[in-house]
Amino acid sequence: MDFFQKDEFWMREALKLADKASYNTAPNPSVGCIIVKDGKCIGMGATSFVGGDHAEVCALIDARKNNQDVTGSIFYITLEPCSHYGKTPPCVDQIIKASPARVVLSMVDPNPLVSGNGIKKLRLSGIEVLVGVCHKEALWLNIGFAYRMLCSKPWVRLKVASSLDGRTALHNYKSKWITCEESRKNTHHWRARSGIILTGIGTVMHDNPLLNVRYVDTARQPCRAVIDDGFIIGEDINIIDGSKVFVFTSVDNKEKKHRLADKNVEVILLPNEKIPASVDLSLVMKWLADNCFNEIHVEAGAGLNGRLLSDNHVGELVMYLAPIFLGDAFPVAKLKRILSLKDALRFSILDAVSIGSDFRIRLYESNKWNYLFETTSKVI
Amino acid sequence: MDFFQKDEFWMREALKLADKASYNTAPNPSVGCIIVKDGKCIGMGATSFVGGDHAEVCALIDARKNNQDVTGSIFYITLEPCSHYGKTPPCVDQIIKASPARVVLSMVDPNPLVSGNGIKKLRLSGIEVLVGVCHKEALWLNIGFAYRMLCSKPWVRLKVASSLDGRTALHNYKSKWITCEESRKNTHHWRARSGIILTGIGTVMHDNPLLNVRYVDTARQPCRAVIDDGFIIGEDINIIDGSKVFVFTSVDNKEKKHRLADKNVEVILLPNEKIPASVDLSLVMKWLADNCFNEIHVEAGAGLNGRLLSDNHVGELVMYLAPIFLGDAFPVAKLKRILSLKDALRFSILDAVSIGSDFRIRLYESNKWNYLFETTSKVI
Repeated sequence: MDFFQKDEFWMREALKLADKASYNTAPNPSVGCIIVKDGKCIGMGATSFVGGDHAEVCALIDARKNNQDVTGSIFYITLEPCSHYGKTPPCVDQIIKASPARVVLSMVDPNPLVSGNGIKKLRLSGIEVLVGVCHKEALWLNIGFAYRMLCSKPWVRLKVASSLDGRTALHNYKSKWITCEESRKNTHHWRARSGIILTGIGTVMHDNPLLNVRYVDTARQPCRAVIDDGFIIGEDINIIDGSKVFVFTSVDNKEKKHRLADKNVEVILLPNEKIPASVDLSLVMKWLADNCFNEIHVEAGAGLNGRLLSDNHVGELVMYLAPIFLGDAFPVAKLKRILSLKDALRFSILDAVSIGSDFRIRLYESNKWNYLFETTSKVI
Repeated sequence: MDFFQKDEFWMREALKLADKASYNTAPNPSVGCIIVKDGKCIGMGATSFVGGDHAEVCALIDARKNNQDVTGSIFYITLEPCSHYGKTPPCVDQIIKASPARVVLSMVDPNPLVSGNGIKKLRLSGIEVLVGVCHKEALWLNIGFAYRMLCSKPWVRLKVASSLDGRTALHNYKSKWITCEESRKNTHHWRARSGIILTGIGTVMHDNPLLNVRYVDTARQPCRAVIDDGFIIGEDINIIDGSKVFVFTSVDNKEKKHRLADKNVEVILLPNEKIPASVDLSLVMKWLADNCFNEIHVEAGAGLNGRLLSDNHVGELVMYLAPIFLGDAFPVAKLKRILSLKDALRFSILDAVSIGSDFRIRLYESNKWNYLFETTSKVI
């Protein structure tokens, strides 16, 4: 292995740690850190729950536990270490104290207030810093955090399960699962990563889903939220189970609001000033970002999917394609008729894999992604 | 390499030859043959145009040209050699005359009249015969020939170019190409392999396509055919260019028929006795098989796609997915509303690859495929 290959090798190990931690760190980014000396890993760590130690500190504690001297070592970290006091003291100071020879980073901190400060501080202390190893992978791991920091919006990941002819459910609703069991289990990984799972009132009424994480191990359950324009939500539906639920609506009903508050349901009034009896989705996005939600996992019907897509709120699509034709059935998204191909909503393909008898395609909105990628490449 | 790996290695070489020949051999199967002696290829050949030499004879001629003695060699052939007099004398006799030690085959001849006879004859002559090496790949190469031989029907390959929401064209027809250039070029490979390219009258009227092979090199152009229920086809459209065109219709119009005959257009009257003013697609399929068409390449709109799919005529789907949403636009296929998921038309995924900015998924109808695979495995 040459120099660069070695850096990439260890960074991939650090990314694995970050990935493993990704179910539990929201609203913090999920970070991995590996300390290497003489070609061997002498300490490793990942972000703990909110308020707990950051990855770098966990790795230092691990090295100490292993009776290792970190002086002259190399730190591989999937994100620029923090340089400010948050719920924990700045990691960068702890690293400097440890006197490593080099620090290798995937990307700069997307937080515009502190971006580059950690790197500057390390360099001023005489530590060599390399930025950009496995940048793409690292950004995908914390895409929601980066988007919230840089654009003050949450990253919307739209999950779709459809037939080959772009249909999601039969008109008589007798088609609970069109994709295979493996696909449905795979969905729970994306649910678990997210800060909040969002759906529409139609889905709640017709399917009464649980929308929690069951098929992957997690110590944290994301919150649930419903877009309910007319505030018609039932009060004993499955998602109202005592854990936090948000209902975004355009209709004020104080009594119902109070009753729901007792069940840990918070009702947020965000009416659209231009479209009567309708929730303003832009305001919902702003509210979600303001409340520190990074990744929004959406599982909804044609109505909400269509609104999110046509208003350009969707950053990423996770599409499960079942190899079937459903014919005249509900479409993936209710969208307006366009007159020219240039008005089509365009995404880029990230990857595609077979899952059971289905196929999963991941796509992203390239303007959003390119902006994040470029901005987190810059060391000012 | 162990024994089996060697067999597989050489068979893959033979398959490559068959694949290269596949544009030119219709209605014959496309076969490759490699003669190996002392671990080296001493002769190779593939099926020539109709009436020309078969792969085995070409390989023998090639070996002779190379001044090689084929006695004691191994023949790798992608299909059981013929044992009957067709347009050429039986290949099996030529092989026996050459005195090889072994003959390795991918699959038995699907023609029920001669299936297994070639193998029997070889074995009776004391030649060791192994059947089934790379069977799957060999069957895909001659799936149309196998299906016609075994089921007296042509293999229908439906090509679809659609958006993520299963739409193929805008309602104003201002969306000539929704997939990328690479996808459109890839389509020409499938056109070139086919015996005939089939479309519907709607596509002819609205798009006036050429439906010929342009982006891959071929010495043979497939025929073109149109399903034209009402016999409304224009007489100076692009596909009527002097080469052979078939029009299947339910309306008799002798004058128009004669005029078209002068332009090399053959009109075939196949009305559906149950549905007035409609072509009977089952009869079209029978006619195509009777006229030695193996692979039917379909590029059509929602109407014909829907009829072919719902009547279970489609054996294979080649779907090009553009990463866009088109919203309210023409669907892939016009299909009836179903009441239960068990009535959905189900396919199996064969493979998926990215092509340019698009994605191609190949699917097959597993009942048809399984029957062909099992039947061509049997040595009676």
